[in-house]
Amino acid sequence: MSDLPVPPYYAVIFTSELVADATGYAAAAQRMEALASKQPGYLGIHSAREGGHGITVSYWRDEAAIRGWREQAEHLMTQQAGRSKWYERYTVEVSRVERCYAFTRED
Amino acid sequence: MSDLPVPPYYAVIFTSELVADATGYAAAAQRMEALASKQPGYLGIHSAREGGHGITVSYWRDEAAIRGWREQAEHLMTQQAGRSKWYERYTVEVSRVERCYAFTRED
Repeated sequence: MSDLPVPPYYAVIFTSELVADATGYAAAAQRMEALASKQPGYLGIHSAREGGHGITVSYWRDEAAIRGWREQAEHLMTQQAGRSKWYERYTVEVSRVERCYAFTRED
Repeated sequence: MSDLPVPPYYAVIFTSELVADATGYAAAAQRMEALASKQPGYLGIHSAREGGHGITVSYWRDEAAIRGWREQAEHLMTQQAGRSKWYERYTVEVSRVERCYAFTRED
């Protein structure tokens, strides 16, 4: 996401707290990012994690693209694994980006 | 934000890269979080930073609340300081949360 898409587009805001022993989480997260990027309507992803607390924002062209990703077979299995093994809690917020702007330092 | 607000509400997604020497940034960020929480229509904030890369999502009741915060006097000065001293680049995306859900592990 070096350039921002043209609004309107969709952002799925995922915030999470991991359990103390989240063995296998990092590899699964990496695999999901790679898999998401192959979905129709995928626009990009940003994530940051500070200790057990993380925010991942994934970007999509429209609601159909979000549905497609939510129901992707391997992703469904990983969501289930997340609830049983890795997450203490999480929130998912589906939002429609109305406007955006960017700043880049001039050197 | 232990409980999610009832949609629709607004999320401002702020992603940033800091310059190598961002002296003063952490204190200013903390001050801005405290100040934002006093604004009318403020619903909450989440943030995570991994090295120089950060995501902050602030939540607001409506567009008027976002405008109020963007134009708050001390916040305006800090935005200016951010562009001149702390940020290599940033993006701001104003989005309307259409639906949300949460998971909490049962112990």
